[in-house]
Amino acid sequence: MSESAPGIGSGPVIRRKQDGSLDYQSDELTVEEPLEIRVGRKTLATTMRTPGHDEELAAGFLLSEGIVRTPSQLANISRPENSPNRENIIVVELAAGVKVKLSSTQRYGTISSSCGICGKNSIAAIQQNFPPIASAPDVRVTTEVLVSLPALLQKHQGDFARTGGIHAAGIFDLSGDAKVVREDIGRHNAVDKAIGRAFLDGMLPLERHVLLVSGRASFEIVQKALSAALPIVASVSAPSTLAVNFAHECGQTLIGFLRPPSFNIYSHIERVIMDAPAV
Amino acid sequence: MSESAPGIGSGPVIRRKQDGSLDYQSDELTVEEPLEIRVGRKTLATTMRTPGHDEELAAGFLLSEGIVRTPSQLANISRPENSPNRENIIVVELAAGVKVKLSSTQRYGTISSSCGICGKNSIAAIQQNFPPIASAPDVRVTTEVLVSLPALLQKHQGDFARTGGIHAAGIFDLSGDAKVVREDIGRHNAVDKAIGRAFLDGMLPLERHVLLVSGRASFEIVQKALSAALPIVASVSAPSTLAVNFAHECGQTLIGFLRPPSFNIYSHIERVIMDAPAV
Repeated sequence: MSESAPGIGSGPVIRRKQDGSLDYQSDELTVEEPLEIRVGRKTLATTMRTPGHDEELAAGFLLSEGIVRTPSQLANISRPENSPNRENIIVVELAAGVKVKLSSTQRYGTISSSCGICGKNSIAAIQQNFPPIASAPDVRVTTEVLVSLPALLQKHQGDFARTGGIHAAGIFDLSGDAKVVREDIGRHNAVDKAIGRAFLDGMLPLERHVLLVSGRASFEIVQKALSAALPIVASVSAPSTLAVNFAHECGQTLIGFLRPPSFNIYSHIERVIMDAPAV
Repeated sequence: MSESAPGIGSGPVIRRKQDGSLDYQSDELTVEEPLEIRVGRKTLATTMRTPGHDEELAAGFLLSEGIVRTPSQLANISRPENSPNRENIIVVELAAGVKVKLSSTQRYGTISSSCGICGKNSIAAIQQNFPPIASAPDVRVTTEVLVSLPALLQKHQGDFARTGGIHAAGIFDLSGDAKVVREDIGRHNAVDKAIGRAFLDGMLPLERHVLLVSGRASFEIVQKALSAALPIVASVSAPSTLAVNFAHECGQTLIGFLRPPSFNIYSHIERVIMDAPAV
């Protein structure tokens, strides 16, 4: 299986067409490979991801786990030297004096076994790391901008979208300008990459921005958005109960089923400027 | 937020309709809560899941991790007594004499940091636990049965499908009869639940069965299928490169984009009985 572009592989496929006839062709597929994220010599996590932007993924992951707060806490992000699978390993070196609680055992995403193990306690635990959002009254987005975002996200996705097997996450400003768009086979990785890029570029806190994800809005997605102080999270599909509760408790506007011209608002509607319906 | 059925929650939502007008209604949402899986006193993993069938999820997870092989190795699966969040904890007690390597640190899904950390090495590591499938020549499925499966899966999904935020996994026999169908907010959890039920019922190895998943086919999905000896894996969406490579190496037939009447075959086409196309 050879690669036609980073993140895209291709392989032979036999396709049964609508009329029942068979077609022998080459299919483009999203690349999936493991990435081991190390902090110094310690392995923090291993995630299945689409290669590319690994340093952003690592930075975004460390931010959303509450391990780092500012880019200055990162001394270096690189591949290990002389490792046989160095392209699937990323090593983060922290700045001198940065202390880290690396109690990552049994961690799955952002939930550790010590956090009380129920949705409500999880929210409380995360709020200890990341305060709820209390944004300025002018942090609002118009309906017009909101419904324009899915097409903008797709436009920035480029070739990847062809494979049908990739998720995207985009960070937009309140006027709908795309600031970062990243893709990955995993939803949470796409968000880590987008937020990680913004973090590394010193754009945080993203107090005047919107996060759009191509898939569903789960707990992890809104939690990662909170870690970057994103006040508005939009998803083209369904949110979960815990995502809605989390967004409500943490001051985030959560929009689901964003399928222009329709969408749902699940929390903090005050940040959406509604236009008058056509009569 | 009150629950209308297990796994479904509901909450207020403001919906912007096609004509721009607003609708104030109550929306059904998929419940997402953490589940801590313990083996004895040790926490093995915490996963975000939809409550229900937790004992199946735990059994399927332990099987796919290579921790147990037969139902007789499980002495008991239950909630912990006197724990404040017992509904989000499941405790597996292993039968006397069953030894387990619980080196779950830094494990993410089925990948541990010790397995070589590249797709190719991951496949080799997993094959040490689960041999490739070499099924009998009569283990084949017709095109007719294959294209009937998505509708059958949806039929067995019942109320859950309404929320739009849930994944399903179904185990079917070669004539298309549904044996187990399970749902969860996470794809891998839905597969763990379906395979876990079959495992607990003594149905393994599932040498004459098909697994259908509602989402994409990632590496984890085909790996879990292999742990139950499932020879045919079908998905309604895209597979990843690693899923295709894995299925190819492990003797599994992998079908993607199963959207009747079309589908793609990525590996081991010999198990699909093609009908002659209409001329």
